[in-house]
Amino acid sequence: MIYPTVDTQISPEGHLEVLSKAEVNKLLDRSRSGMYQLFRNCSLAVLNCGSDMDDGKVLLQRYPAFDISIILRERGIKLEVRGAPASAFVDGKMIRGIREHLFAVLRDIIYVDEAIEHNASLDLSSSEGITDAVFHILRNAQVLRPLLSPNMVVCWGGHSIARNEYNYTKTVGYELGLRGLDICTGCGPGAMKGPMKGATIGHSKQRIHNSRYIGFSEPGIIAAESPNPICNELVILPDIEKRLEAFVRAGHGIIIFPGGPGTAEEFLYLLGILMHPANAEMPFPVILTGPESAREYFAQIDRFIADTLGVAAQAHYQIIVDDAGQVAQAMDAGIKKVREFRKAHGDAYYFNWLLKIDQEFQQPFAPTHENMRALRLHKNQEPHLLAAHLRRAFSGIVAGNVKADGIQAIEEHGPFELQGDAELMKSMDALLTSFVEQHRMKLPGKAYAPCYRVLL
Amino acid sequence: MIYPTVDTQISPEGHLEVLSKAEVNKLLDRSRSGMYQLFRNCSLAVLNCGSDMDDGKVLLQRYPAFDISIILRERGIKLEVRGAPASAFVDGKMIRGIREHLFAVLRDIIYVDEAIEHNASLDLSSSEGITDAVFHILRNAQVLRPLLSPNMVVCWGGHSIARNEYNYTKTVGYELGLRGLDICTGCGPGAMKGPMKGATIGHSKQRIHNSRYIGFSEPGIIAAESPNPICNELVILPDIEKRLEAFVRAGHGIIIFPGGPGTAEEFLYLLGILMHPANAEMPFPVILTGPESAREYFAQIDRFIADTLGVAAQAHYQIIVDDAGQVAQAMDAGIKKVREFRKAHGDAYYFNWLLKIDQEFQQPFAPTHENMRALRLHKNQEPHLLAAHLRRAFSGIVAGNVKADGIQAIEEHGPFELQGDAELMKSMDALLTSFVEQHRMKLPGKAYAPCYRVLL
Amino acid sequence: MIYPTVDTQISPEGHLEVLSKAEVNKLLDRSRSGMYQLFRNCSLAVLNCGSDMDDGKVLLQRYPAFDISIILRERGIKLEVRGAPASAFVDGKMIRGIREHLFAVLRDIIYVDEAIEHNASLDLSSSEGITDAVFHILRNAQVLRPLLSPNMVVCWGGHSIARNEYNYTKTVGYELGLRGLDICTGCGPGAMKGPMKGATIGHSKQRIHNSRYIGFSEPGIIAAESPNPICNELVILPDIEKRLEAFVRAGHGIIIFPGGPGTAEEFLYLLGILMHPANAEMPFPVILTGPESAREYFAQIDRFIADTLGVAAQAHYQIIVDDAGQVAQAMDAGIKKVREFRKAHGDAYYFNWLLKIDQEFQQPFAPTHENMRALRLHKNQEPHLLAAHLRRAFSGIVAGNVKADGIQAIEEHGPFELQGDAELMKSMDALLTSFVEQHRMKLPGKAYAPCYRVLL
Amino acid sequence: MIYPTVDTQISPEGHLEVLSKAEVNKLLDRSRSGMYQLFRNCSLAVLNCGSDMDDGKVLLQRYPAFDISIILRERGIKLEVRGAPASAFVDGKMIRGIREHLFAVLRDIIYVDEAIEHNASLDLSSSEGITDAVFHILRNAQVLRPLLSPNMVVCWGGHSIARNEYNYTKTVGYELGLRGLDICTGCGPGAMKGPMKGATIGHSKQRIHNSRYIGFSEPGIIAAESPNPICNELVILPDIEKRLEAFVRAGHGIIIFPGGPGTAEEFLYLLGILMHPANAEMPFPVILTGPESAREYFAQIDRFIADTLGVAAQAHYQIIVDDAGQVAQAMDAGIKKVREFRKAHGDAYYFNWLLKIDQEFQQPFAPTHENMRALRLHKNQEPHLLAAHLRRAFSGIVAGNVKADGIQAIEEHGPFELQGDAELMKSMDALLTSFVEQHRMKLPGKAYAPCYRVLL
Repeated sequence: MIYPTVDTQISPEGHLEVLSKAEVNKLLDRSRSGMYQLFRNCSLAVLNCGSDMDDGKVLLQRYPAFDISIILRERGIKLEVRGAPASAFVDGKMIRGIREHLFAVLRDIIYVDEAIEHNASLDLSSSEGITDAVFHILRNAQVLRPLLSPNMVVCWGGHSIARNEYNYTKTVGYELGLRGLDICTGCGPGAMKGPMKGATIGHSKQRIHNSRYIGFSEPGIIAAESPNPICNELVILPDIEKRLEAFVRAGHGIIIFPGGPGTAEEFLYLLGILMHPANAEMPFPVILTGPESAREYFAQIDRFIADTLGVAAQAHYQIIVDDAGQVAQAMDAGIKKVREFRKAHGDAYYFNWLLKIDQEFQQPFAPTHENMRALRLHKNQEPHLLAAHLRRAFSGIVAGNVKADGIQAIEEHGPFELQGDAELMKSMDALLTSFVEQHRMKLPGKAYAPCYRVLL
Repeated sequence: MIYPTVDTQISPEGHLEVLSKAEVNKLLDRSRSGMYQLFRNCSLAVLNCGSDMDDGKVLLQRYPAFDISIILRERGIKLEVRGAPASAFVDGKMIRGIREHLFAVLRDIIYVDEAIEHNASLDLSSSEGITDAVFHILRNAQVLRPLLSPNMVVCWGGHSIARNEYNYTKTVGYELGLRGLDICTGCGPGAMKGPMKGATIGHSKQRIHNSRYIGFSEPGIIAAESPNPICNELVILPDIEKRLEAFVRAGHGIIIFPGGPGTAEEFLYLLGILMHPANAEMPFPVILTGPESAREYFAQIDRFIADTLGVAAQAHYQIIVDDAGQVAQAMDAGIKKVREFRKAHGDAYYFNWLLKIDQEFQQPFAPTHENMRALRLHKNQEPHLLAAHLRRAFSGIVAGNVKADGIQAIEEHGPFELQGDAELMKSMDALLTSFVEQHRMKLPGKAYAPCYRVLL
Repeated sequence: MIYPTVDTQISPEGHLEVLSKAEVNKLLDRSRSGMYQLFRNCSLAVLNCGSDMDDGKVLLQRYPAFDISIILRERGIKLEVRGAPASAFVDGKMIRGIREHLFAVLRDIIYVDEAIEHNASLDLSSSEGITDAVFHILRNAQVLRPLLSPNMVVCWGGHSIARNEYNYTKTVGYELGLRGLDICTGCGPGAMKGPMKGATIGHSKQRIHNSRYIGFSEPGIIAAESPNPICNELVILPDIEKRLEAFVRAGHGIIIFPGGPGTAEEFLYLLGILMHPANAEMPFPVILTGPESAREYFAQIDRFIADTLGVAAQAHYQIIVDDAGQVAQAMDAGIKKVREFRKAHGDAYYFNWLLKIDQEFQQPFAPTHENMRALRLHKNQEPHLLAAHLRRAFSGIVAGNVKADGIQAIEEHGPFELQGDAELMKSMDALLTSFVEQHRMKLPGKAYAPCYRVLL
Repeated sequence: MIYPTVDTQISPEGHLEVLSKAEVNKLLDRSRSGMYQLFRNCSLAVLNCGSDMDDGKVLLQRYPAFDISIILRERGIKLEVRGAPASAFVDGKMIRGIREHLFAVLRDIIYVDEAIEHNASLDLSSSEGITDAVFHILRNAQVLRPLLSPNMVVCWGGHSIARNEYNYTKTVGYELGLRGLDICTGCGPGAMKGPMKGATIGHSKQRIHNSRYIGFSEPGIIAAESPNPICNELVILPDIEKRLEAFVRAGHGIIIFPGGPGTAEEFLYLLGILMHPANAEMPFPVILTGPESAREYFAQIDRFIADTLGVAAQAHYQIIVDDAGQVAQAMDAGIKKVREFRKAHGDAYYFNWLLKIDQEFQQPFAPTHENMRALRLHKNQEPHLLAAHLRRAFSGIVAGNVKADGIQAIEEHGPFELQGDAELMKSMDALLTSFVEQHRMKLPGKAYAPCYRVLL
C-alpha cells in the first residue's frame, strides 16, 4: 500500500526559531554521532498523528522517503519536509498544532544534547542530578510557569480503549475544564486524547483562552503514541524514567483511566514513590476512574495492588466509577490541599521539589531479555522497591509491544521471561491475561501475540 | 417537580458594564412601559442553557421565583440573580460563557430601546431604515469587525435532530474549524450547537484563539433555543425578521443541516432573497448537508423547492451528503468568491450592504390566526414573493410549536389554517408530514400535536 | 507665506471604522444642516498639531484648500485628506497618534449628532440630562473603564507658558508617572502637553504600557489648542461646559499649573462646584503648583480667591511651590481618599455621579457682548454663584483671545465690557493685568491687544 | 556622608524567575569560586541608577552594607535586598525597570556560568566559538527576535557630555522613534540615555508599544555606567570584547555622539572591523553626529582617523552636524540597505553572522601596565590591525578612568605608558588632550588626573 505524502516548507511557531549555525549542523549530521536520525524519527512520529497505528517500526517502514532539513533564513529557520504523511495537512497546509510539535522536537533534541548530555556540571549518576536534568528540560520548554496556581491534572490511561471508555475520558476532561483545570498526558490517542478534547470544550465555555494541554513523550514511545495536535506544550524527555518524573513533578494530581501495561507501569511508578516513607505527609490526589463497564477492571487492579504491595498501598488512591462530575470535584479538592502544602512548605507550585524519588525509579531501565529475567519480583523487600521492579516489568512489556527496539528484540529472541514468587507471578499473570482479553495490549485489528512469558 | 436553583451576584464581563443611572432604572422598571419583563425573561432563557426543553411557556413556569436586578458599584454594575436554574453553575459558580450572555442580553435590550426604538432619525418603515437598525445593533454588539477577511459560516438546522445527525454537524464544524472558518448560528441546541463544538476542536488544533462563535437570537425564540455557552458573541435582535437579516448580512455563506419548520423558514427566506433579480450576480454559497441517513430528507426538500419555487431556485444551493471535508472545501471556495466580489465592488466584508432584501422579508410578521389564514400561498406570483409567503407560513408554525405567545394562541384558538393552490398545498402537507414523522417538530419526549391544518 | 501640505489616504485605527452609509452621507453633507464644516474644521485643527499658533481663525485661513472625505472600503472606511499641514507627517506618513485623533473627531461628531442631539429621551434642559449626555459621550469614547482604580490626574494650565514653567510641568508629570498615575488635560500645548510628556518617561521606567493620556477638547477651542499626539484618548465634547464637566466627573484630582484666563476659568468653575453645600463632604484633591518663579503668581491667585470668594474657598486647594515629588505624593494621597469615599458610597470610580453640579455651571454660555456686560459680578450672592459668573467672564476672554467666533466678534464690536462691584472689579483688573504682563494671554510673538475692558 | 538606603523583598518580572536549587546555591556561594561577589556588585550597580558617579570603586564603598539574597517561594523566587540605594525606589517601592534589571543580572550571570564557561562543546579560543558564545547569551536573553525587520540603531557616545549635547541626543532619539526605529546603547547616562528618552516620546506618538531599548553592559563597566531604567532589555556580557561584538552583530546601524575615550574605543573597534577586506561589500551605516557646538570635535576625530588609519577609513562613516531629522533619515535609508543585503544573502536579520570579526578584536584585552606598554602603535601594519591596537589603548584608558580594577592599578603603579610612532603618538596626544580639555574623560566635578602618559 502506498501512503499519500506531502512535501513542503514550514515556518516556525513559538520561540526557538533562532538556531546557531553549529546547532543546525549537528541536527543535520547523519553520522552515527550526529542527531539526524533521532530528529527525523521523532519528526515523523509527530507528523503521523491521527493514524491508526501504534507500531513504531511499521511507521518507519511506511514512510521510507521521509526527510527533514533546516534552512537558515533572514527571519529565522525554516523546516523543509519531504514525503511527510498527508494526514498532517489540511488542503495542503500543515495543521499548526503539528507544526508547533515539530519545533518542540527540534528544541528538545538540541537542548538535551547541549545542556544535559554535554553539561559537565550535571551529575546524571546522582538522584539530584537527574531531577535537575528534568527541571532544566521542562524550564527550557517553558513548562514551568511561576505565576500559576496549581491546576495541572495528569491523565494516564490506555491508548487503545473502547469507544465508551474514550467518551468517558472526554466527559471527565469536560468537567475538569469547567473547573479551570488543565490537562497533562502522554499526548497519544485514547485516554491521552479524550481528556484534552473534553477540557477544550469546558475551557471554551469558561472563556479560558490560555489553557494548557501538556504532553510528555520520549523518543522510544513517540512513534507509537503520536502526539495529538490539541496538545499545546509538547516536551520530549530523553527516556521513560525522566518522562515519568516530569509527570509527578509538574502535575498536581493524577487521574488513571483504564489502560494496559503502560498504564500499569505508570500506576506502579506512582505508588512506589508515594509509598516511600519520605513522602508520607505529602498530599497527592490519585483517582482511578472509568465508566460503569470498567468497574470490574478497576476492582481487578485494586486486588492486584493489595495482593502485591499490600493494603497500605490502597490508601494512596480512590476509585470512582462512572461519575465524571465527582471525579472533577475530588481532584479539585485534592489539588487545593496540594496548594496549601506547597505554600506552607515554600515549595514551588510548578515543580514538586519535595517529592522524594528513589534512584531506583530514576535510573533508565533497558528492557533486554537479560534485564527482564533478572527483575526481583518477590515480596521479600520493601513495598516501594517491589513497586520499582514491577514497574520495570510492565515497562519491558510496553517496549515489546510498541517500541521499535523492543519489537525487534522480541522478533530476534522470543518473548521476555518474567520470574519470581509463585503467588506474585500468579497475580501478574492474571492481570496480564485480562489485559489481553480486554484488548488493552495494542490497538485492535489483529490477534495479540504476547511479548512475554510469565514463568509460574 | 422542583427544579434546583441558585442565588448569586455576578460581575460583568466584556464592555457594557458601564450603565447610567437612567438606564438601570429603565431596566428595572416593572411597569408595562418598562423593560423588566423582557430583561427577566431573556435572562432566564440564557440561564436555562443545556436544558431538555424547547417550550418557552414551560420555562417561565418552572422558575416562577426567578428574579434579576442590577447593583451599581464602584467598579461598574453587578447583577443579582435569585432562583436561577442550577444548570448554569459549576460548583456554585456561574459558567462564564453564560455570564457573558446575561450581559449581552442587557446590552441589546438597552441599545434597542435607546438607539432603535427611540431614535427619531431612524425610519423603521423603510427598507433602508430596517437595514440600518440591523447594522446599528450588530455594530453596537461589536460583531462588525472591519479588519477580518470573510470567514463567517452560518449554520442552520434543527434544534431537535437525531444523534447521528448531531455528530455529523460536529464533524462539519471540525472541518470548518481546521480551515480557519468561524461559525454563526441561532445558538440553540442541536444543529446550532454541534458546529460550534466541532469548530472549537478544529480551532484548537490550528491554535486559533480568537475564534468567533456568533449566535443571533430574538426574544421570542430565546426561551426555546437557549444559547449554548460556547457561543461567544450573542446578539438579541428584536424580532425574527431582523435576526434573519443579521444572518444574511453578516454571514459569508450558509450551511443548512436537517431541521424542521424553523430551518424551512430560514431556507425559504434565503431563497426568496437570492432569487430577487437585483441579487442575480451576487455570489452566496449555500450548502445543504447531512449524514447518509439524511439523503432522502434533502431529496424531499429539493423536490419541494422545485415544485414550489421552480427549478431556477435549485441553482442557488448544492446538496452534499455525508462528506464533511467536501462541505468545508466547497464553503471555503465559495467564500473566496464572496471576498473577490466584495473587494471588486468595495462592499464591506463585515456587512453585505449590496444584498437587496425586499421589504416583504423585513417587515415583522405577526403569526395570528388571521394572518396565517391570509397568506397568499399560490404560484401565481413571482417566485421570490411566493417564497416570502411560504416563509411566513413556516414562521407561524415555529411560533405555534415553541414560542410562548404562539403556544398560547393555539391553546386558545386551535391550529392555524393554511390555504392556497391545491398542488402547492399538497407539497406543503407532504413536507410537514415528513417533519412530524421524522420528529423534527419539537424535542422528542411526547407525541407531536400539530399547531396547523393544511386546507387541501 | 505658503504652508507645505500633503495629500493622502489614511486607514482607521481603533474601533469606529465601521460606519453606515447614512452616517457617511451626513458627515459629507456640506449643506448648512450637514456636519461637513464641523468635521473639516476639527480635523484640520487635529492635523495642525505642533504648530506655533493659537488663533483658530488664522488656522482656517492658512489651509484654505484643506479637504477631507470618507471612502467606504471592504475592510471599513478610509479618510482621504487633501491640503493637510505637512507637520502631521514624518517622511510622508501621518503620525499615528494624529491618525487616531482624526478618527476620534469622526466618532464624536457622529455620536453627538445621533445620540445626544437627536435623542428624544435625553432632556438637555435638565441638570440630569446634561450629565447623562456627558456620560454617554465619554462611554461611547470608551473613556469610562470600570475595572480601573482611581488614578486620573487632571492637569490644567496655560497653553502659553515660559520654558522653565513648561519644564516643571514635565517634571511633575514624570513624578506622577512614576507613581502609576495617568494624565488628563485639555490636550493642547504648554501645561497641557508637559505632564503627558513627563508621565510618558515615568510610565516607561515603570513598564506601564497601557497608560492613559486623555484629552478633552471642544470644537470652539480645538483649533487654538491642537491636541498633542501623545494624547491617546481624545474626546471632543460639544461645548466648554460639557468639557469642564467631563474633567470633574472623570478625573480624580486636579493639578493647576500657571496659566492665563482659560486656567482661571477652569479654577473658578472648580471652586464654584466644590463650594456647593451638597459637595461639602466630598474629597477632591486640588493642587496649585509651579516652579519657584511662579511663587508670586500663585500668591496673586490665592489673594484674588480670598478677595472674591472668601477665605472659605481657600480650604479647597493647596499651593505647593517647586517640589514635583511632593505634588505627586500629595495627589496620590488625595486620590486614595477619593477611592475610599467612592467605595464607601458605592459611587463609580470612573464617573463621579455624586458630585453636585449646579445648572449654572452646565448651561452653555454664549460670550456675546451683551451677555458679557450682563454678568453679575458682585459679592452680594452666594460664593458658588459668584464663581459661576466669574467663570463666564474668563470664558468670554478666552473666546475673545483665541476662538474664531470670539475673535470675529471683537473685531466687529470692540472689546467686551465687564462691570460689577468696584472692589471686585479692581481685583479682576489686577489679575488680568498681571496675565498680560506675564504673557499669559496668548502665545508670544506680538503685543497683546486686550479683548475686554474692565469698567472700574 | 551617609547615603539613604532601603531594605525590601522584590518579586521577579519576566521569565527567569524559575531557578533550580543548585543555581540558587551557586549564586549565593560567597567562596572565591562562587558567584556571589559578581552578583552582588552588578546588582548594586543596577540599583545605583540615576546617580552622579562614574567611579566603580567609590560605589562599592558607598554602600558597604548592601546585600542581596534569593528566597525560593511557591510562585518562584524573590530577591531580598538590604542596604540598597534609595534612589532606586519611589515612595518605598522599587522602580519596575530596575527590578527587571536585577533579574537580568541574575539571568546572565547564571547563564554565562552554566552555558558558556562550563560548556565543553564551546571552544572559546576560536573566533567561531566566541561568536557562538555571544549568540547564545543574546538568545538566552531573548534579544534575538526572528520576526522583526531590521530597525535597531546602536547609539554610542559619552556618559559625560554637555547639556546641549545631551538634548541633541534626545532629539535624534525622538526622530528615530518617530520612524519606528529602536535603540541600543551601553545603557549608561549621557549619550546612552538621551536617545532612549527621545525615542520613548517618538514611539508614544506613533503608538508603538513594543519598543525595544536594549542595553549591553559588562561587569567591569556597569558600576560606572549604571543602566537607566528606560532600557527594557538589559544584557550583561562577560567582557568588553563580547559586549562590542554584541553591538555590531545585533545592531543594524550605528550613531556616534560626542564622547571620550570609551567612544573612541568603540569607533576604532568598528572601523577595524569594517576595514577588514572580508567585509568590503557589507553595508553598515555609521553616522557621527552632534549639535553645532560639536562640529570642531568631529573634525578633530575625522582628522585623527585620516592621520592614523588613512583616508580609506573615512569612507565608512558620514558626519552630520546639527540635523537630527537628517540623521534619522540617513539611518533609515542605511538600514534599508542592510535589510536588502541580509535578504539577498539569507543572513539573519537578528544576528549579523556574515560580518567577519578578526580574533584580534575578540580576545579579551587585560589593561595591565605591561600590556599597555606593549601595544604596537605604529603604522607599519595593516590599518585594521592598527585599529585593533588603538582600540586597546583607549580601552585601557577607560579602565584607568572608571573601572574599579583599573583605578586600583593606576593608584598602585602610576599612569599607563603608551609608546609608538612619533607622528601617531602626536595625533593621539592631541586627541586625548582635547578630551581632557572638553571634560570628556569623566563626569565633571573635580580636575581630571590622566591615567596615561603618551611617550612622545
